[in-house]
Amino acid sequence: MATLETESVDQPLAIICGGGAVPFAVAEAVRRRGRPVVLFALRGIADPERVGGYPHRWVSLGKYNEITRGFHSEGCRDVVLIGSLVRPSLWQLRFDLGTLRILPNLIALLRGGDNHLLTGVVRLLEDDGVRVIGAHEVAPELLMPAGMLGTHAPSERDRADIARGLAAIAAMGPFDIGQSAVVADNHVLAVEAIEGTDLMLARVAELRRIGRIRAPAGRGVMVKAPKPGQEMRVDLPSIGPHTIEGIVRAGLRGLAVVAGETIVADVASVARAADQAGVFVVGVPAARPDGPP
Amino acid sequence: MATLETESVDQPLAIICGGGAVPFAVAEAVRRRGRPVVLFALRGIADPERVGGYPHRWVSLGKYNEITRGFHSEGCRDVVLIGSLVRPSLWQLRFDLGTLRILPNLIALLRGGDNHLLTGVVRLLEDDGVRVIGAHEVAPELLMPAGMLGTHAPSERDRADIARGLAAIAAMGPFDIGQSAVVADNHVLAVEAIEGTDLMLARVAELRRIGRIRAPAGRGVMVKAPKPGQEMRVDLPSIGPHTIEGIVRAGLRGLAVVAGETIVADVASVARAADQAGVFVVGVPAARPDGPP
Repeated sequence: MATLETESVDQPLAIICGGGAVPFAVAEAVRRRGRPVVLFALRGIADPERVGGYPHRWVSLGKYNEITRGFHSEGCRDVVLIGSLVRPSLWQLRFDLGTLRILPNLIALLRGGDNHLLTGVVRLLEDDGVRVIGAHEVAPELLMPAGMLGTHAPSERDRADIARGLAAIAAMGPFDIGQSAVVADNHVLAVEAIEGTDLMLARVAELRRIGRIRAPAGRGVMVKAPKPGQEMRVDLPSIGPHTIEGIVRAGLRGLAVVAGETIVADVASVARAADQAGVFVVGVPAARPDGPP
Repeated sequence: MATLETESVDQPLAIICGGGAVPFAVAEAVRRRGRPVVLFALRGIADPERVGGYPHRWVSLGKYNEITRGFHSEGCRDVVLIGSLVRPSLWQLRFDLGTLRILPNLIALLRGGDNHLLTGVVRLLEDDGVRVIGAHEVAPELLMPAGMLGTHAPSERDRADIARGLAAIAAMGPFDIGQSAVVADNHVLAVEAIEGTDLMLARVAELRRIGRIRAPAGRGVMVKAPKPGQEMRVDLPSIGPHTIEGIVRAGLRGLAVVAGETIVADVASVARAADQAGVFVVGVPAARPDGPP
């Protein structure tokens, strides 16, 4: 984990703020450490009510100059990009001149997976003198620890399913998909591609309902892990209490994520939700990319 | 492709008959060549109306002795297993004594992917002196040819997406999932696991409807291919006119399958459906397993 140079921590930290609760957990953690923050809240995506609790500017995806000029006005040199973000369509973005300048790059970036896109956006910002920092660097207390959250533990069978899920995610990495997978009895039931983790879990629930998944409820795990080579600074996997709800609806025994490489916006409430639902949540080491276990 | 010994072709061919139209296309093709057939129609799965057009017996999944004794009574030594089959649950099968004998094997086979299961079932049957033959061996005219069916052709961009889809399927092979994938603009949008091809296509249609897929309609391809190491005798991919309907609803440009390794129950009606819908259907060579293109 990078240590930030002391000289920079008096400058406010710019947080480009996508959807969900994680951006605010990051903002809170940074403020607790005494560093001021300015939210650059994405219009139509960030939660307006919670944005209001912090110094902020509303900005639009596609208005590249609006964002970089904002950094300058606020005296920010460091920026964190955090929160959920549905892949934009070029046809739906409204551009400013700064975006038109980078348009050829953007078009190339949109032809590929999310990691390809995000890595490219980081490179564009850095070319303009912005320092892109990972949320886990400014708020390491939000990272999933090794071992269990809550009181329920994975069985030996669950551990085998976790290993297989990690290996499947590693195999999908070169294709820039598959941040999560569901495995039961050594059988891969679902792999996440563009639908996202929540919709993948909803699919598992539905496949169980219609009888396509015949394993009894309470069997199987969801595994979530960064893709190999994932741009960790802008796309760390994250979980929250709603992830536990999805696990329960899908009839799974629990959830495994990579310790130190997953953001948990609110550890206490995730642990409480897991205990109440009778499922496990465990932080495990990353898979070595050497095929199926 | 194996050549059948002449001595065996006077015996009737047993066809264990799952769901869909493909079993009847196979039965027709075999009869056209002058060999008698007996359908072993799976209760609750095979289409009763079409089964009635052939010599047949109704049998149950899980009644292993019922099936193997039937082979004996009908004088069948060769058997083809063909048609769709939802993975059974041990808890829903009603067993006979023959099945109880093989139960420990079956339990092990059900803990894994479909290829693992089907390969095991083939081995069990062969241990009992049955010869399991691929539908493509008795009815090679049902195999997808190389090149286009119908008049529409893939563009260069589509060809790149096809190559990426084939590579993604190859990478998923060791996990016994992923007989098909959807790719648009070099971005893998969906990978098939337990849901099956039709439900995967329905998901792509839905993700487009809710705006999660932002690429304009008429972009992207579905690729369907055997998994590396797939038991080709009992689990060849198949397509039919309903596959074209799924492609159209998902807003894709076309469909690529592996020539010589895909069953097309009715080539003429697939070509007609593709032409009417304005999509391409192409038979391509299998991917070499060397990572993403």
